Amino acid sequence: MKTLIVYAHPEPRSLNGSLKDVAVSTLEAAGHEVRVSDLYAMNWKAVVDAADFGGYATSPLRVVPSSGGAYDAGALTPDVTAEQEKLLWADTVIFQFPLWWYTMPAILKGWVDRVFSFHFAYGVGVHDETRYGERYGEGILLGRRAILSVTVGGPQSHYTDRGINGPIGDLLFPIHHGILYYPGMEVLPPFVLYDAVRMSDGEFEDVTKRWKQRLLTLETTAPIAFRRQNSGDYEIPSLRLKEGLEAPGRGGFNLHVRD
Amino acid sequence: MKTLIVYAHPEPRSLNGSLKDVAVSTLEAAGHEVRVSDLYAMNWKAVVDAADFGGYATSPLRVVPSSGGAYDAGALTPDVTAEQEKLLWADTVIFQFPLWWYTMPAILKGWVDRVFSFHFAYGVGVHDETRYGERYGEGILLGRRAILSVTVGGPQSHYTDRGINGPIGDLLFPIHHGILYYPGMEVLPPFVLYDAVRMSDGEFEDVTKRWKQRLLTLETTAPIAFRRQNSGDYEIPSLRLKEGLEAPGRGGFNLHVRD
Repeated sequence: MKTLIVYAHPEPRSLNGSLKDVAVSTLEAAGHEVRVSDLYAMNWKAVVDAADFGGYATSPLRVVPSSGGAYDAGALTPDVTAEQEKLLWADTVIFQFPLWWYTMPAILKGWVDRVFSFHFAYGVGVHDETRYGERYGEGILLGRRAILSVTVGGPQSHYTDRGINGPIGDLLFPIHHGILYYPGMEVLPPFVLYDAVRMSDGEFEDVTKRWKQRLLTLETTAPIAFRRQNSGDYEIPSLRLKEGLEAPGRGGFNLHVRD
Repeated sequence: MKTLIVYAHPEPRSLNGSLKDVAVSTLEAAGHEVRVSDLYAMNWKAVVDAADFGGYATSPLRVVPSSGGAYDAGALTPDVTAEQEKLLWADTVIFQFPLWWYTMPAILKGWVDRVFSFHFAYGVGVHDETRYGERYGEGILLGRRAILSVTVGGPQSHYTDRGINGPIGDLLFPIHHGILYYPGMEVLPPFVLYDAVRMSDGEFEDVTKRWKQRLLTLETTAPIAFRRQNSGDYEIPSLRLKEGLEAPGRGGFNLHVRD
């Protein structure tokens, strides 16, 4: 495997830093190639602005066409281009981050906002009567696998089906489906650690064991069975799921997972 | 009213910039006080790091206690303190932003990550057999109202109950419930504009009319009826919704909305 780890935590000696280190050493010991995008260490620019698009920034600034124009011309900034190249190099991508306010930290969102540019991650492919571009199961990152490794401050019960924060699968759906599956990646079930602020050394040993097991089975773990957009399951161009396809009792985001 | 507008778009002449301007002029003409946090113009620092906590940053850096320590001592950075003061000054908060990758732009997420500090927005109140702190309907921002005004590139059908992106209400739930209701704000139904990249001048006139109507009824619009955490609806401390309380056919995030 060629694995890219996108890692977002300000403290190398944190739980997140340790899990990143475990991933690097475990994968390398198993003979895999590993590259790390350590966003804090790279002083990653989190904010989209006109400077991202060089001479291709429209005035007034319209982000979508500026992004596409700069991408087409190879004129995106070197930091963004380097990340796009790493994504194309990798066959597996691990995202290691703490859940802050029920989603990713701003620095990682800014990595998505800037790296997933127009004509690279979206706005590609033909739109006709049977296809609505290449997305949700097709796209530039097709053939790659992604997994979120997430630390959570609160207890697991708060994130269950009836838990007050909402089910963890629903909270992560906009990342799993809307960000990673969108440009074609298959998404594995996440590795989630609860009660992360209260973890003892003994618990960390057990966690390490479980994380290694996930790392060494990345190639064989079944991905989440999201429906492919252009597979016939959706009306085009409304992109509403056709009637009768949903599993009984499955609503909301889960409509978009096959049985 | 005293209204704070938190605005996140890099281009003043954008649709988002225009909607922000309409909000300022409409509310001021109606005799209300308005303040604007224009995050791009302020060059808002989006990224949480040790510099946020001055001498209260622990080593190794642990974000939660560092944040709480600095807040308790009044030692958070002046940019963060100013935003906390604006939130306490306001009785209504409008968030104006484009939906990027199904959630807020990184600069706005970074505003949440930094301004919603420990002991201010979370980690407050008593934990006992009937209460699990002050959150989800209680907290520092109790008595305030919030509304998201969001522009979306795609068509509305993609965001409906069966739409491929997921229902817009579910996509916004982690912001509505997890960020705004959490420290006590009541959350109004959002103002969402679809097909925002293709809007004509004629359509913008109609949009302005509808937005003004929402702005002039902020005080009387019924908020989303989220369940209060300490109201008896949830088991404590598991914070699972008690059996039998859900409306028929309502699952996922919608469990947490009263009938």
